[in-house]
Amino acid sequence: MAALTIKDIAKICNVSISTVSRAMNNDPGINAQTKERVLRVVKEFNYIPNNSARNLKMQESNTIALLLKGVSNPFFYEMLPDFQKRLEKEGYEYMLLVVDEDGDEVKIAEGLAKEKRLKGMILLGGRFDYPGAELQNIRIPFVLVSVASSTTEISKHKRFNSVSIDDRKESYKVIDYLAKKGHRHIAIISGRETDDTVGSLRLDGYKAALADNGLPFEQRLVGYMRKDIPEYTEANGYAVAKALLQENKDITAIFAISDRLAIGVYKAIADAGLRIPDDISVVGFDGIEMTRYTIPSMTTVKQPKDAMVNSSVDLLMSSIHGDETKQKLIYDAELHERDSVKALTIE
Amino acid sequence: MAALTIKDIAKICNVSISTVSRAMNNDPGINAQTKERVLRVVKEFNYIPNNSARNLKMQESNTIALLLKGVSNPFFYEMLPDFQKRLEKEGYEYMLLVVDEDGDEVKIAEGLAKEKRLKGMILLGGRFDYPGAELQNIRIPFVLVSVASSTTEISKHKRFNSVSIDDRKESYKVIDYLAKKGHRHIAIISGRETDDTVGSLRLDGYKAALADNGLPFEQRLVGYMRKDIPEYTEANGYAVAKALLQENKDITAIFAISDRLAIGVYKAIADAGLRIPDDISVVGFDGIEMTRYTIPSMTTVKQPKDAMVNSSVDLLMSSIHGDETKQKLIYDAELHERDSVKALTIE
Repeated sequence: MAALTIKDIAKICNVSISTVSRAMNNDPGINAQTKERVLRVVKEFNYIPNNSARNLKMQESNTIALLLKGVSNPFFYEMLPDFQKRLEKEGYEYMLLVVDEDGDEVKIAEGLAKEKRLKGMILLGGRFDYPGAELQNIRIPFVLVSVASSTTEISKHKRFNSVSIDDRKESYKVIDYLAKKGHRHIAIISGRETDDTVGSLRLDGYKAALADNGLPFEQRLVGYMRKDIPEYTEANGYAVAKALLQENKDITAIFAISDRLAIGVYKAIADAGLRIPDDISVVGFDGIEMTRYTIPSMTTVKQPKDAMVNSSVDLLMSSIHGDETKQKLIYDAELHERDSVKALTIE
Repeated sequence: MAALTIKDIAKICNVSISTVSRAMNNDPGINAQTKERVLRVVKEFNYIPNNSARNLKMQESNTIALLLKGVSNPFFYEMLPDFQKRLEKEGYEYMLLVVDEDGDEVKIAEGLAKEKRLKGMILLGGRFDYPGAELQNIRIPFVLVSVASSTTEISKHKRFNSVSIDDRKESYKVIDYLAKKGHRHIAIISGRETDDTVGSLRLDGYKAALADNGLPFEQRLVGYMRKDIPEYTEANGYAVAKALLQENKDITAIFAISDRLAIGVYKAIADAGLRIPDDISVVGFDGIEMTRYTIPSMTTVKQPKDAMVNSSVDLLMSSIHGDETKQKLIYDAELHERDSVKALTIE
């Protein structure tokens, strides 16, 4: 007796192959009686479809996958051990998958959810609103953590559990702080020129804070991350800051939208023979461990890592336990004042 | 017809349950004819044992797991995208699993290999010679990359594919270099006092190079990483360097056995009101990207990341394709001379 195929089951039940598939996948669109009949036959013949056999393991298992985009960001990997500990404490196995810079996280997440029958998924970093990417196709509980949305699509995320900060507001806080310290020519190292997510939101906050402090927005003070260098790296921050400093002798402060960028800014300032904060003030973003050890220690926006880990696991747990409510949690970050900003006498 | 159990198969074949199991698991200890008979019945009845059903997915799949210990080391992180790209190019799916500081990698690897029927495994970082941990129990092709062995057990690794550097030799090179630059009081930030792997090997290299350069070994110049602070972090390097500098005013150079430690050393030196390299020279180890951006840029031992990634995947591929030879590849690292070391006039 050769193994039965899905065709055989369909023939025996006198239904189409897709009906068998829908019955087995618990699709709500199928007639209840038909479904019962199909499942009875499936059971009778001990039929194990390819993908169902694949999934048996995962149906029994307790695995939660963490899908990470942005492996180069220490902020994310500083979160990993905490995610792992918390999930293990909840009794789940934990599997980490890294999506590379060009990967489409949503497609990958969708495939994973289908293929592995995971208990749940945490999507960390990246953006989840590519054209055609449909989060609702992910049929298992999931939560979006620090996930960027394009500025036009941000409201869509209300339909999903998500945990993040308010990028515009936090950026505003930095620039407002610098302006109140007397800085008048504040440069920003922003996302790539085409960026319409985090970089764009933080640039918006920069503009709004300038306006509220009576400062003009000047395009020449905006340094877009370079396309030919990996994003959010020291190398990119270094190159952009170097050009900004060469072309604008009046800059007294630089806000870099990530700490790794800011570490590159430190180097560009040193190479230009300038000192931090005496000549140029610097503010970073994320609050990675390393910023305590830069010289001088870096003023930065510290994201509430622990709260974000815990609340995202909480949301995921509720969702796994059947709670259908969706929450969009937005945390306040904190401007950590350290030694890289100097107060100027107001002109 | 209810699903058959392993008992039913055993009854039909008139053998014991364990014989069925051994036949299905391709155990070499079973009689070939018995095995054939059992497998014929298994096939005839389309019998899917629990764990075999679980494994169907993986038997068809092409997954290679990368088991990472040392989530806090950027050196490993920097390797991940390269591993991923290379494995995908070879046509494999890639799954990353992180083992936390207290986890036993060998047990986890063994479990994974059994449970998921992976095509192969890359064990990155960590140590694989806990008492009772038996690498040979991992029944799938694997390769050890940058895996530490206790100093007494190192020869065992000859039986496995492994890719690493020679920790003793590379450490020797650093100290020899500093001694030849005229340094006479060279401190080391080594592993924890109980360390018998990488830290211990690098300390051995330190001692040997001192001896060969006619310098006495002085216990007071050895800073063991502190137990109360996470290993290999800036915070640990900072704390240990601070104590070393307070207690030994004659130190002119500090070798930290990782770059993150060395970044902490930079800070301790700055806090002591000293300058690098004018007052104190510093050398790190690993060659992470960040060391190009420290101020001054850091002299460090650069591990040959690309070669290590590629040759470990090569070894794994050969092994997957049936090559039984085991190779222990040891790469040369390179001392990158940058701006953190000053040549002293020899006293």
